[in-house]
Amino acid sequence: MPVRVMSYDTINPGDTRDFAVKLAQLEPSRISRLALLVKTEGNSDLNDFSREYALLAAEQTIRAHGGDSLLARSTFLFSTGCEGAMTPFGYLFADYDDPAATVPAGGKSLAMGCARSRSLTSEEIGTPAHAEITAATVRAAMANAGVSVDDVELVIVKTPVTTHIPAAAGKVNKRIPSSYSKAVASLGAGMELGEVDAAKIVQEVFDKDHAVHAKRVMSFSGSELDCVEIMLLANRTNQPGDLVVKTGFLTDLIDAPGYRNILRTCGCQLDEEGRAVDPDKIVAMMAKVGVSPDGKLRGKRTTMKTSHLDMDKHARATTSGVIGSILGSCRVFISANTVHQAPPGGGLCAAIVKIT
Amino acid sequence: MPVRVMSYDTINPGDTRDFAVKLAQLEPSRISRLALLVKTEGNSDLNDFSREYALLAAEQTIRAHGGDSLLARSTFLFSTGCEGAMTPFGYLFADYDDPAATVPAGGKSLAMGCARSRSLTSEEIGTPAHAEITAATVRAAMANAGVSVDDVELVIVKTPVTTHIPAAAGKVNKRIPSSYSKAVASLGAGMELGEVDAAKIVQEVFDKDHAVHAKRVMSFSGSELDCVEIMLLANRTNQPGDLVVKTGFLTDLIDAPGYRNILRTCGCQLDEEGRAVDPDKIVAMMAKVGVSPDGKLRGKRTTMKTSHLDMDKHARATTSGVIGSILGSCRVFISANTVHQAPPGGGLCAAIVKIT
Amino acid sequence: MPVRVMSYDTINPGDTRDFAVKLAQLEPSRISRLALLVKTEGNSDLNDFSREYALLAAEQTIRAHGGDSLLARSTFLFSTGCEGAMTPFGYLFADYDDPAATVPAGGKSLAMGCARSRSLTSEEIGTPAHAEITAATVRAAMANAGVSVDDVELVIVKTPVTTHIPAAAGKVNKRIPSSYSKAVASLGAGMELGEVDAAKIVQEVFDKDHAVHAKRVMSFSGSELDCVEIMLLANRTNQPGDLVVKTGFLTDLIDAPGYRNILRTCGCQLDEEGRAVDPDKIVAMMAKVGVSPDGKLRGKRTTMKTSHLDMDKHARATTSGVIGSILGSCRVFISANTVHQAPPGGGLCAAIVKIT
Amino acid sequence: MPVRVMSYDTINPGDTRDFAVKLAQLEPSRISRLALLVKTEGNSDLNDFSREYALLAAEQTIRAHGGDSLLARSTFLFSTGCEGAMTPFGYLFADYDDPAATVPAGGKSLAMGCARSRSLTSEEIGTPAHAEITAATVRAAMANAGVSVDDVELVIVKTPVTTHIPAAAGKVNKRIPSSYSKAVASLGAGMELGEVDAAKIVQEVFDKDHAVHAKRVMSFSGSELDCVEIMLLANRTNQPGDLVVKTGFLTDLIDAPGYRNILRTCGCQLDEEGRAVDPDKIVAMMAKVGVSPDGKLRGKRTTMKTSHLDMDKHARATTSGVIGSILGSCRVFISANTVHQAPPGGGLCAAIVKIT
Repeated sequence: MPVRVMSYDTINPGDTRDFAVKLAQLEPSRISRLALLVKTEGNSDLNDFSREYALLAAEQTIRAHGGDSLLARSTFLFSTGCEGAMTPFGYLFADYDDPAATVPAGGKSLAMGCARSRSLTSEEIGTPAHAEITAATVRAAMANAGVSVDDVELVIVKTPVTTHIPAAAGKVNKRIPSSYSKAVASLGAGMELGEVDAAKIVQEVFDKDHAVHAKRVMSFSGSELDCVEIMLLANRTNQPGDLVVKTGFLTDLIDAPGYRNILRTCGCQLDEEGRAVDPDKIVAMMAKVGVSPDGKLRGKRTTMKTSHLDMDKHARATTSGVIGSILGSCRVFISANTVHQAPPGGGLCAAIVKIT
Repeated sequence: MPVRVMSYDTINPGDTRDFAVKLAQLEPSRISRLALLVKTEGNSDLNDFSREYALLAAEQTIRAHGGDSLLARSTFLFSTGCEGAMTPFGYLFADYDDPAATVPAGGKSLAMGCARSRSLTSEEIGTPAHAEITAATVRAAMANAGVSVDDVELVIVKTPVTTHIPAAAGKVNKRIPSSYSKAVASLGAGMELGEVDAAKIVQEVFDKDHAVHAKRVMSFSGSELDCVEIMLLANRTNQPGDLVVKTGFLTDLIDAPGYRNILRTCGCQLDEEGRAVDPDKIVAMMAKVGVSPDGKLRGKRTTMKTSHLDMDKHARATTSGVIGSILGSCRVFISANTVHQAPPGGGLCAAIVKIT
Repeated sequence: MPVRVMSYDTINPGDTRDFAVKLAQLEPSRISRLALLVKTEGNSDLNDFSREYALLAAEQTIRAHGGDSLLARSTFLFSTGCEGAMTPFGYLFADYDDPAATVPAGGKSLAMGCARSRSLTSEEIGTPAHAEITAATVRAAMANAGVSVDDVELVIVKTPVTTHIPAAAGKVNKRIPSSYSKAVASLGAGMELGEVDAAKIVQEVFDKDHAVHAKRVMSFSGSELDCVEIMLLANRTNQPGDLVVKTGFLTDLIDAPGYRNILRTCGCQLDEEGRAVDPDKIVAMMAKVGVSPDGKLRGKRTTMKTSHLDMDKHARATTSGVIGSILGSCRVFISANTVHQAPPGGGLCAAIVKIT
Repeated sequence: MPVRVMSYDTINPGDTRDFAVKLAQLEPSRISRLALLVKTEGNSDLNDFSREYALLAAEQTIRAHGGDSLLARSTFLFSTGCEGAMTPFGYLFADYDDPAATVPAGGKSLAMGCARSRSLTSEEIGTPAHAEITAATVRAAMANAGVSVDDVELVIVKTPVTTHIPAAAGKVNKRIPSSYSKAVASLGAGMELGEVDAAKIVQEVFDKDHAVHAKRVMSFSGSELDCVEIMLLANRTNQPGDLVVKTGFLTDLIDAPGYRNILRTCGCQLDEEGRAVDPDKIVAMMAKVGVSPDGKLRGKRTTMKTSHLDMDKHARATTSGVIGSILGSCRVFISANTVHQAPPGGGLCAAIVKIT
C-alpha cells in the first residue's frame, strides 16, 4: 500500500483546520494506518502543555473523520520547540489504499511500519530490558512494514520516562530523565539495526559512552506513555508510490554540506548557491541535531550550554537558519538531543522526496 | 594612518585576558584611536547587566595599558545577545601609527572615523532635532576619517533612550523606547549619507513608514549615554593598510546569497557548497537582521513575534546558522532590529577582508 | 436557587479527574447554570496555551456529564499564572435546584448572575461603545441574578482584545492590548455600579487617568472571545443558601490587614497571629493585585517592572505569600493587573464564606 | 570592637553611590573588618553576571575609600535573585573602632568573625575533607570573633563549586553542583556547631539524607572562589555596641509565626495584625527558605518544582510577601535552598535588632 505524505499548517497548537482539510482528502476506510509527526510551539519547558493540547485537538479531529477505529489506527509524535525561524506545522503519513499507485522505475519506494510494545514496569525502565524491548518493537515495526534491516532509513522511537502503573503503597514510580530514556531506547533500536554492538547494551554505556551510537534512529521521550512506540520509514521493493526516503549524518550544527548530501542522495538538484532547485519535491525533512559536550562549535565557545535557555533551543534555532538557507523554507521538522543517535555534537537528517 | 582590526575571545563578560593580550601588541602612544565592537552574553532582557559589566572591565584594561588618555581616545559598542551558536567575543579597531604600512594596489583601504555629539536635552530626544544631530555627528565622523559620502561603507550609531541631565523638580526625564531611538537616529544618519530624503525626517515617519530606510547604517541604543556616538568605516583613497570594507543588503533572515554576494564583492572566493574558501582573510563581519512585520518568513508563519522569547533572539540565533554555514564559524557580530536601516524584514551586513 | 461553590484540584491543565468527581455530585437537570473560575499553570507568556487546553478538557467533561445543553448553560473564566506557592485549581459555581436549602437568619445569601453581550465589531472594540456594552451586560447579569446594584459584591468581566468577525478584504482586524481592553471594560462595569462617573467613559481616560476606578470589578481579557461576558456575585434578599460574599480593597501588595478586614466582614475570626481560625469556612477567595506605576513598594525600589519576568508574575507570587500566611493555604484565586479596578498599586479581594 | 550595621540602596548592580555615602561615614583606619551582604538583581540563571558586576564595582569603591589594605580586610557575599517585591540592596557590616560604644545592660551584643580556608584541591571538593575544612574555618571565625559555640547565632558559608587550580594536562577540573557544595559545607559547619553528628559527614548523607541538618548555618556557593569563606555573627559577652542577633527556624514557606517568634526573641513588639511595631529597630534580616521535596505546601500541589522558573525564584518571591506583610518592607535579604541547613521544606531567619 503506498504511503501518502502531506503537511498541514497550524495557527496555534489547538488549531486543526488545515489538518482537517488534508485529512478530508483521504477516505477513512482506505486508511490502513495514520501517523502524525508534528512540531508544536510553546515555551518547551516543564510547564509547556502545548503538545498535550495539540494531541487532544488532533484526536478529536481524527475521531470526527473516521471514528474511534481510525483513531485506533493512528500513531502520534508531537515535538515541542519551534525556535528560530521554524514554522509550527505537521506531517501526516498515511498507508493509503490507492489502486492507481504504481511501483516506480527503480523498484523501491517509501513504506511505513508501526509497532507498540507492552507497558514497561517501573523496574524495567532505564535498564537493558528497556533497550531489548525497544529492539523487539523495531523488529515488529519492520515486519509491519514488510522490510528488512537494509531497507530501513529512519526509526522514530517514542520512549517512556516513567510508568503509569499505580505505584505500590508508600512508593513512587521511578522516573528517569528524558535524555536517559532516549539514550537507552536509541541503543536498543541501533542494536536491532546492526549499528550497535549488543555488548554495549549495559548500564555503563547508557548516556555515558557517547561514541556508541545508532545511525538511523531518532528518539523522543514522552511522559504520557508507558510503552515504546516505533514509527519506521523504509524503501521497500515492489512498493507502489512515488516517494523515496534517505537518511544521512551531520557532523555538527552548521554542517550545511551534510544536508546537501542527503538531498543529492535523494535525487535533488542544488544550484550554485547550494540551494535546492526544486524544493516542492521535498515532501518532508526531519532533522535531529546535537550540541557537543563541551558546548563549543568548531573550537569556538558558544553559550548553548551556559545560558538561561536550554541548549536544545539554541540548537533548533541555529538549525532553522542552516536548513532554511538551503531549502528556502523553515517549515521542516527540527528536533534536538542526539544522545546515542549520532556522534557527540553531530546529528542526522532524513528527507522524503518525490521520484520524478 | 592604517586601521588595525583584531578580535579577542572572552570566557565571560568580565574576562579581558585575551583582550589584554591583543592590546599589548599595540604601543599606546601609537594608537590615535581605539574602538571596541563587542558581543556580550547575558539574558538580553531588562535585567541583563552583562554589557555594563563588560564595559567596566574593558575600561580597566585600557587604563592599565595606556592610562586615562588612551581611555579618552576609545569608543565602545557593546551589544548583548549571543543566541544560537554565536561566540561571545570582541573586535578591536585601532587607528595605528605604522610607518611600514603601504597603500594597496587598488589605492583604497579601510579608514575609521569617530565622533560624538553634545548631550541631547530631554525635549530633543526622539524628535527631528535628534535626527539632525545624528546627521551632523555622521558628518563630523566623515571629516574625522577624511572621507566623503561615497567612501562610506558602514556607519555605526549609538543613540540615547533618555537624557542624564537631572530632571526639573517634580518631573521625570523623557525615556523613549529603544526601537524608536534607533529609528530616529537611522533616518538622521541615512539623510547625511544621501539615502533618506530630508522631507522624511518627521514624526509621522519615525518607526511608522518602514519603507523609508538608510542603506549603510547600523543603529544601537544605550541607556548609559545622553549623546549620539558614531563609529564610521570607509575605504579611503591613498590610505595605507591591507583591509577593505564592504556592506550589502539581505532580503530576509535566510538570505544566504546576500551574505555570499558581500563576500564576493570583497574579493572572497566561495566553494561549490557556497562556503568561504579562505575564511581567515575575513577579519570582521557585522550583520544586522530583522523580522518582517507580520512575523512570517517567505510566507510561512514563525513564532518569532509570538513566543516568550523576544523576536531579536530568534533572529540572531537563526542568523548564526546561516552565516555559520557559510563561514564555518559563528564568531561574528550579529545583531537584530533593522528599523529604518533596511526594508522591513531585511537586513544588512558588512565585511572587512584582507586584500591579498 | 441556592449557589453551590466547590473547588477541585488538577494535576496538569488538562486533568479533569477531580473536576469530574465534584461535578458528579450535581444532577445535571438541577443545574440551571454552571460557572468555572480556574487558575491554570503555564509560562503565562504569549506562547502559553494551557488555558485553552484546560478549557477544551473541561468542556469535554461537562459534555460527558450533561451533554451540550449543560455546556450551553456554562460560563468559563480560566486565568493563567500560578507563580509563587499558588496551587493550580478551580472553583465550580452552580445555581443548583436544592429544595432543602433555606434562607439564612440574616435574610441574605450568595446569588450568581451571568450574561453575555452580542459580538463587538472591530470598530467598537476599545472605544466608549465597548464600555457601554459592558455596562449593559452587567445590567443583564444583575437582572439574571435578581439583584440590585447595592447587592452586588463582585463583577467578573471577560472582555475581548479582538473580534472574530472575518476582516474585510485587505484589512486586518483591530487588536487592542489586553490591559487596554480591561481598562475599558472595568470603567464600563464601574459606571453601571455607580462607581465611575459616566463623563469618564472617554478615550482620554482609558488606561491613562488611573485615579478613576471601579470598586467591585475584576476584569480579564481573552483572545478567544469577541463579546463581553459577565459573571456576577451578590448577596440577595430571601435567597436560600449558606454562603455570603464580601469584597474589599487592598492598598498595596503587602496589605495583609486589607485581607483580614475582608475576612472579618464575612464573619471570620482571626487568631493572635492574624490567621484565619477556621479556614474551612472560607469556600472561595479571589484576589486581584497591582503594581504601582513607579514599580516601588512603600517607597522602596523593586524589580517588578524592570526584570525579565512580567510584573504580574512578581505580583502574583508575592501575594501567594501574603494570603498564604493568613489562610495557611495558597489554593486561592490570585490574579494581577488592576487597571481601573483599584487605585494604582492597589487591589481588591472577594471572599465567599459559610454562614455558621 | 563594636559592629556597625548599615544598609544601602542600589539603582542597578553596578551602582555604588549610596554605598559610598554610607562608607564615607566610617574612617578607613578605624575599620578593622568590612563585610558586605548584598542582594543583586539579574535573571539569576546561568548567564547572570550581575553579581560579578556588583562585586567589581564595590571593590572599586572600597579601594577608593581605603585603598588595597581596606579591600584586603573586606569580605563579600553577593547573592542574586530579587524576585517578588524584594528591593535590591546591601548590608554593610564593619568592626569599627568606636571608643564611645559601651557594653549594653544585658552584657552581650553583636560580634562578627571572618575566616578563609586554604584553596581546596580538585580531589577534595565535594568530599568529607571539604566538610572538615569548613568546620575548621568556622572554628577560625569563632576565634576571630572571640566567641564560643553557644554565642554563635549565624554562620554564613561561602563554598566553592570548582577549583581554580589549573587542571592537569588532558584533564578538566571537577565541578560539583551548587546544591551539593552547599550540602557538604552546611554539614561541616553544623558539625562544628554541635548540630550535626560527625558520623554523618559521609558521602551517603551529602544531599541525600535531608533530615540531617545544621541549625544556624546559611550556605552559598560561588564559582569565583576555590576556598571556604566564613562570616559569623554572634552575641559576645562584654562586647560594646547596641545590637543583638537572633536566629530561628521556619517550618515552611508561609510560616509567618516563625518570623514573628524571631522578632519577639529580639525584643520586638508586634501589633494586633502581627506586624512589627517599630520596624526601624530591625537593622537587618536574613532569611533562607526552602521548598519541600515533593513541591507541595501544606499538602497542596504548587508549581515551584514544575515550572519554567527555578523553584528558588518562586520561594524568594513568596517569602517577600510573607516578610513584607510583617515588616511593611521587602528590603530584606531573602535567599533560597536550605539543603542541610533546615529540615526539608523549612528555613531559617536571623534578625539583627537595636537594643533599646
